[in-house]
Amino acid sequence: MRKRAVEISDQTTARLSVYLRCLTALEKEGIQYTSSRGLAERLQLNSAQIRKDLACFGEFGIRGVGYAVRDLRGQILRILGLTRDLGIIVVGAGRLGTALADYPGFQGESVRIVSLVDVDRAKIGQRTAGGVPIRSLEKLPEIARKTGAEIAILAVPRSAAQEVADRVVRSGIKAILNFTPVPVVVPAYVKVNHVDLTREIEGLAFFLRQLATARKAGTEARAASR
Amino acid sequence: MRKRAVEISDQTTARLSVYLRCLTALEKEGIQYTSSRGLAERLQLNSAQIRKDLACFGEFGIRGVGYAVRDLRGQILRILGLTRDLGIIVVGAGRLGTALADYPGFQGESVRIVSLVDVDRAKIGQRTAGGVPIRSLEKLPEIARKTGAEIAILAVPRSAAQEVADRVVRSGIKAILNFTPVPVVVPAYVKVNHVDLTREIEGLAFFLRQLATARKAGTEARAASR
Repeated sequence: MRKRAVEISDQTTARLSVYLRCLTALEKEGIQYTSSRGLAERLQLNSAQIRKDLACFGEFGIRGVGYAVRDLRGQILRILGLTRDLGIIVVGAGRLGTALADYPGFQGESVRIVSLVDVDRAKIGQRTAGGVPIRSLEKLPEIARKTGAEIAILAVPRSAAQEVADRVVRSGIKAILNFTPVPVVVPAYVKVNHVDLTREIEGLAFFLRQLATARKAGTEARAASR
Repeated sequence: MRKRAVEISDQTTARLSVYLRCLTALEKEGIQYTSSRGLAERLQLNSAQIRKDLACFGEFGIRGVGYAVRDLRGQILRILGLTRDLGIIVVGAGRLGTALADYPGFQGESVRIVSLVDVDRAKIGQRTAGGVPIRSLEKLPEIARKTGAEIAILAVPRSAAQEVADRVVRSGIKAILNFTPVPVVVPAYVKVNHVDLTREIEGLAFFLRQLATARKAGTEARAASR
């Protein structure tokens, strides 16, 4: 019997990434077994949530022993689609684009930046400090086809965002990480994750406002009780 | 009677940011009134959700007329804490840090990057392309106090992340946007928003894997039905 593809939320996927990071650290430390409680303590998460997340994908744990760190890590890599090579093209060779191209934070050994593309002739043919080649945006479809890259990171000026997104989609890429402030429009079969700095700052501004309100209320309450 | 501070989720705050962006655009276009349905169509969101979000903060709409764009925008700016000046210090004057310091995406007129700090003597005393001064990390508490900056953006190497976060907290800053791959540990009264590129890429990898699985299943189903 074929298993149905499981619908998994972005939140679950995000947590799986966190578990993966933790398991990678445990493996490096030479720890062979862990438990949902062990993971929960290390990650300051709820152990029931961890068991629930992992149960979505089948039975990994061994009763009384817990999870074999290496096995579980392999399973999560497989679930996340990180066991095969995954190429990324960064569009925009400005400071943000070159910084992202050289970003050291990837843990999936299989994820790699294959190229940076730009329209600036002065940059085309150069390499980033980390050695990523910079090529012409015109070559995007060719680069995507030859390298099999499946993800594009948009790091272009706001004014170019939608046009570049259209080019990316036409080149056959179906997953985009958008670093521009513009919410680009793409066909339904393409996934865009939007890293919106404005929104992040607004979230923090809101937290600070709540903090200030709470503090003021506290001060007034103390004054009133005198 | 004093209103109790409302507990609002990060998701709601994120949606308020989206409404704000839309209202800013409407105001620029000279549109004076809108409705939850109008906003919903423009944003491809659910109008009931929009009404519910706005209802958390009191009655803004006028029956039969809708929302006055300018008023609603002002209310959301106030709710998000963007009506007062909000200073940001970027820590780390590498490519990512300087790119973030010059990021053009801020819409709250009140949000500004006050300084970039670093440990590199060659950079201290310089300015970014956008004119943001680069100062010594040692001066962080002084800069925070003098400018009243309340948010720090971490754009330092992975190895320095926790130490820099500790310094930021000691300087009295209570909101952090973390661009390092490290999940920094801070006291409970400090809020950290983590922009984790690894996690974003893993989310996209997972989407691509599901897409591949669905396509394979479709091909097999067509083959079986022949």
